[in-house]
Amino acid sequence: MARPTVDAQIRVRRHPERASYDTGDIDAILDAGFICHLAVVRDGRPVVIPTLYARDGDRLLVHGSPAAGMFRDAARIADVCVTVTHVDGLVLARSAFSHSINYRSVVIHGTARQITDDGEKTEALGVIVDHVARGQWDTVRRPTPEELRQTDVWSVTWTEASAKVRSGPPKDDEADLDLPIWAGVLPLVTTAGALIPDQFVAPDVAPPDHLLSWSPASSGAGDTSGK
Amino acid sequence: MARPTVDAQIRVRRHPERASYDTGDIDAILDAGFICHLAVVRDGRPVVIPTLYARDGDRLLVHGSPAAGMFRDAARIADVCVTVTHVDGLVLARSAFSHSINYRSVVIHGTARQITDDGEKTEALGVIVDHVARGQWDTVRRPTPEELRQTDVWSVTWTEASAKVRSGPPKDDEADLDLPIWAGVLPLVTTAGALIPDQFVAPDVAPPDHLLSWSPASSGAGDTSGK
Repeated sequence: MARPTVDAQIRVRRHPERASYDTGDIDAILDAGFICHLAVVRDGRPVVIPTLYARDGDRLLVHGSPAAGMFRDAARIADVCVTVTHVDGLVLARSAFSHSINYRSVVIHGTARQITDDGEKTEALGVIVDHVARGQWDTVRRPTPEELRQTDVWSVTWTEASAKVRSGPPKDDEADLDLPIWAGVLPLVTTAGALIPDQFVAPDVAPPDHLLSWSPASSGAGDTSGK
Repeated sequence: MARPTVDAQIRVRRHPERASYDTGDIDAILDAGFICHLAVVRDGRPVVIPTLYARDGDRLLVHGSPAAGMFRDAARIADVCVTVTHVDGLVLARSAFSHSINYRSVVIHGTARQITDDGEKTEALGVIVDHVARGQWDTVRRPTPEELRQTDVWSVTWTEASAKVRSGPPKDDEADLDLPIWAGVLPLVTTAGALIPDQFVAPDVAPPDHLLSWSPASSGAGDTSGK
């Protein structure tokens, strides 16, 4: 793989047993979501905002807007940190100290470059739309040049990335195991509700199959095939 | 209120109609979650990690670890940006451009101070534990001095905060409304699964009511009473 994934800067120091620097592990977590938290330094201070993304091979495509002003650099390049987090459950232990969260997260340190070519930008938007809802891009009206001007897409490449995963039951001290306190996991799951059409949908326009069957696992977000 | 909540630095420029600087709006979004993304500047570069938090009046209490090394300043104070995001649904439009996400988010710019007093730290951990699962703190073994040494809690106060909310149907251009394309919202909801006891729970130790009835809305996370 072309991606270096670890050095001293990113090495996980808190619970290192939960860390992975494996490209497959990292890609699986990235592909299981569509909202990231993107951090930059602005005027010397940290700024972090949520936004849409999709993995495109060895880069992330990140959605933005010229108005958000994340990139003031005339070169349209910035150091970024992108973090993706999935919360899988509450870990309820006998001791306060052993309480935790089951989660999967990836932290990426890299560089964001603004995509300025209209063709490349349109293609990138298609990757993002289809990542959120696979099959959607082919059914919708494509962006006009004016709409492209009102949209930013950043290509994020990274020099360092790490995954961190906690799963399974609590890890109480042995001395606490006999305490008459319930301990275990409360799983948390994100599910899709029923589609809500807007008021302009004609009676003969049904939702497409890819939306009717959407789930976090069936969307582009569920693809771990290593595209 | 003692909290100033807006100036030019934080003013939302992208979709300003979605922004709010109202303390009640901000608190409601903070109280509806327990995972934040905390950003700092380290060696001139942005770093953002997910962690647990609870609102405690006009400050956030944020969970951490000495090993994570977020704070290298001997004064144990750092500029931070804390962002909390709830994803409520996919907004599926007739045009690619009008696609969006329904969400509620808060961005805070402030200062994190490490809590070093054992009594204050214990109290803060209680607030965090009870925020994640109300009633839990009174049922578990409290931290020992050694456990407290292995835990960091930061008190984050802010000078600026803003909320941003998108809800409702897509906003397609009028010219697109007659296109034979389905448009609307796919709601996304986080739900709790059945409790999974660990292998050491004795047969006569039942889960407490506050865990059996836990939901994102019934936990401390659902409290918007302005504690």
